[in-house]
Amino acid sequence: MMNQAERSRKRAVIVGMGFGGIRTARVLAGKGLDVVLVDRNNYHLFQPLLYQVATAGLEQESIAYPVRAMARSWPGVRFQLAEVQGVDFAARTLRTDAGPIAYDYLVVGAGSVTNFFGLDSVERHAFDLKELVDAEALRNHILTAFEKAVNEPDPARKRALMSFVVVGGGPTGVEFSGALIELVRYVLAKDYPELSTDAARVVLIEATDRLLAAMPEKLRRYTLEKLRGMGVEVLLNARVTDAGPERVVLHDGAIIPAHTLFWSAGVKAAPLAGALGVTPVAGGRIAVQPDLTLPDHPEVYVIGDMACIEQDGAVLPMTAPVAMQTGIYAGEAILAAIAGRTVPPFRYRDKGSMATIGKNAAVASAFGFDFRGYAAWLVWLLLHLYYLIGFRNRIVVMLNWIWYYWFHERQVRLITSRETPSPSA
Amino acid sequence: MMNQAERSRKRAVIVGMGFGGIRTARVLAGKGLDVVLVDRNNYHLFQPLLYQVATAGLEQESIAYPVRAMARSWPGVRFQLAEVQGVDFAARTLRTDAGPIAYDYLVVGAGSVTNFFGLDSVERHAFDLKELVDAEALRNHILTAFEKAVNEPDPARKRALMSFVVVGGGPTGVEFSGALIELVRYVLAKDYPELSTDAARVVLIEATDRLLAAMPEKLRRYTLEKLRGMGVEVLLNARVTDAGPERVVLHDGAIIPAHTLFWSAGVKAAPLAGALGVTPVAGGRIAVQPDLTLPDHPEVYVIGDMACIEQDGAVLPMTAPVAMQTGIYAGEAILAAIAGRTVPPFRYRDKGSMATIGKNAAVASAFGFDFRGYAAWLVWLLLHLYYLIGFRNRIVVMLNWIWYYWFHERQVRLITSRETPSPSA
Repeated sequence: MMNQAERSRKRAVIVGMGFGGIRTARVLAGKGLDVVLVDRNNYHLFQPLLYQVATAGLEQESIAYPVRAMARSWPGVRFQLAEVQGVDFAARTLRTDAGPIAYDYLVVGAGSVTNFFGLDSVERHAFDLKELVDAEALRNHILTAFEKAVNEPDPARKRALMSFVVVGGGPTGVEFSGALIELVRYVLAKDYPELSTDAARVVLIEATDRLLAAMPEKLRRYTLEKLRGMGVEVLLNARVTDAGPERVVLHDGAIIPAHTLFWSAGVKAAPLAGALGVTPVAGGRIAVQPDLTLPDHPEVYVIGDMACIEQDGAVLPMTAPVAMQTGIYAGEAILAAIAGRTVPPFRYRDKGSMATIGKNAAVASAFGFDFRGYAAWLVWLLLHLYYLIGFRNRIVVMLNWIWYYWFHERQVRLITSRETPSPSA
Repeated sequence: MMNQAERSRKRAVIVGMGFGGIRTARVLAGKGLDVVLVDRNNYHLFQPLLYQVATAGLEQESIAYPVRAMARSWPGVRFQLAEVQGVDFAARTLRTDAGPIAYDYLVVGAGSVTNFFGLDSVERHAFDLKELVDAEALRNHILTAFEKAVNEPDPARKRALMSFVVVGGGPTGVEFSGALIELVRYVLAKDYPELSTDAARVVLIEATDRLLAAMPEKLRRYTLEKLRGMGVEVLLNARVTDAGPERVVLHDGAIIPAHTLFWSAGVKAAPLAGALGVTPVAGGRIAVQPDLTLPDHPEVYVIGDMACIEQDGAVLPMTAPVAMQTGIYAGEAILAAIAGRTVPPFRYRDKGSMATIGKNAAVASAFGFDFRGYAAWLVWLLLHLYYLIGFRNRIVVMLNWIWYYWFHERQVRLITSRETPSPSA
């Protein structure tokens, strides 16, 4: 039941509890607005660490945090578990599977999904990492492959079971490759004395001539050399064109026998972008006004991966820092609009980027400085702990990292599903 | 490849990596035997804490430990992930879905499954707690019920969504009821300000006139009073006869509107018992010789919940302590048989039993002493940490308990599956 005062309060509805959405919520909390958070999951997911769940390094629960646990300390904010179906702009109403939700201001940050660029066979057979279940399914699949290899009499199939193809030389592909080869060399080699784990392969395939394209050349070269030194086979200027359950086919017809294909070669805006009544641009994203609103709808903001924002002649990347900054901006813009103030156009401040390659090895480029090796790795650890939501989560994650650092032990190597794990598609 | 020396080594095959099987393995490790551990899961599961996973208190990974992580420090021991299909006693061969495994000695400890006593509708609609996936599914179901209650306009259905029927007044039923009412009162009440969680019901149904039948009367009374004081509705001398997705029917025709039914009113030996060529006795268990072997098969041991062992005129209960002691005995009996020694008949030493009811409240009966309240609760905590496998697991579990104790916070309240969770059946 709402009383008269509450009815007259402006209502902001935020769709998507990713890096952007939770920051918009934090800005709007306790400012006299009625704020409704909508997500189809009841938790915020720290996606950058999904690859560590997939490689048995972290519990899946440690990188997720219940939205209600945040919302209950935010005055005026409540949560609605729902799948969004569309928006009725004229009626200012969000359509969801839990019923319609009226809004005065709408912030849409539903994130992105994997882009397979129309490669159907790849989509059918490849794993990706966008959701918590993806990470658990991939971990189950990797460990099950080793269990199958134990019983496989044919040497070629045995090796294919221990071969992993990673597509995409961006941060996710680099981090996953490094974590996977370390899992095999440091942990599984001890778990499976009956296997020659030296024969295991991790093949990283990148379509261009460089890994971590956003990084300075020195760091790109370090990454390539480091990964190769760890035993990852890096193929540059190579593309995957076809895939089956036991093989991956490259553009030149070469076949890699491998039972696991991981795809991190592209993302596109979540399908909800198509329901916003605006023709999407490249990657399914929505071209927004300088203040992140929809053309003709100054009360609707698009943030994070869904927003296509041009700045200095280039389109901003689909990354967590962009999502966070657009999320904060949208919250402040709504407060300004209510107060009758105007806001300057959104401007992204690039604080740099980083990627971890393996133990004691990372690259970071920030504020004009380039770090690599141990220093960059330490900065990576601390920043990820800082941005992880929930103090207890931070402790559990830190505990796992310390364990791994000291004992070379990753304990979450559990196969939690006996069904044949089904890939992303 | 085995050399001549290895071929001539005796091989012991242990089926089931529960409380019994891992102890048999530990006894046989490094004693010159070839030991093969067989389980359909790649981990040992600490079942007594499943109810804490189901009530959002623990990560599922923290109560499971990879078998290979144990086996790699045990000389002569290896692991085979496989589902056992049967035993060929004449050929001394175990039949599995990963192929046949020959044995000289066989130890069978496949545990138990839930016994619904032929109540089909209950089996279809009830949740139980035997496996890791059960606990996650039940947690998802409980939290989803509260999310649905938020949107439910009908007050009766809203209350039924927040009503939980627990069947069976043994340790599992008591512990789950207590943990569930605390989850609702301490945690969900804060998470769902839009719900009157005071209207939530936890109904514990027991067919006899007592809870925790194995306990002395004073502790039974304490348990009953404590649970009722916490808000659990305890119905004694009551039986569930029918169930649907939104209601539970009692023996007298009374109907409890509830969307969640949890069954802990009985167990029976795992189906594998039926494949051992011996007619099972009550509860599907196998009547064994005084040395735990099968009649006519002195090389085959049955341990844990599957073994029906009479002692002092009563049958031993299906509990973790019995499983542990039978597991150790089987290992020592095999070593004795190889050395040509005989062993005295198995004899169970009852060290007592315990159950936790809630924060600062437990009952324990051991060595002729009865404890209750804070002291029993502390003993319960320490013993469970002690028996949990894996140092890191112990730290994570302890961390969760401290968190809950200090902050009344259970952080794993994640809905990790968007599908309608399907109950046990």
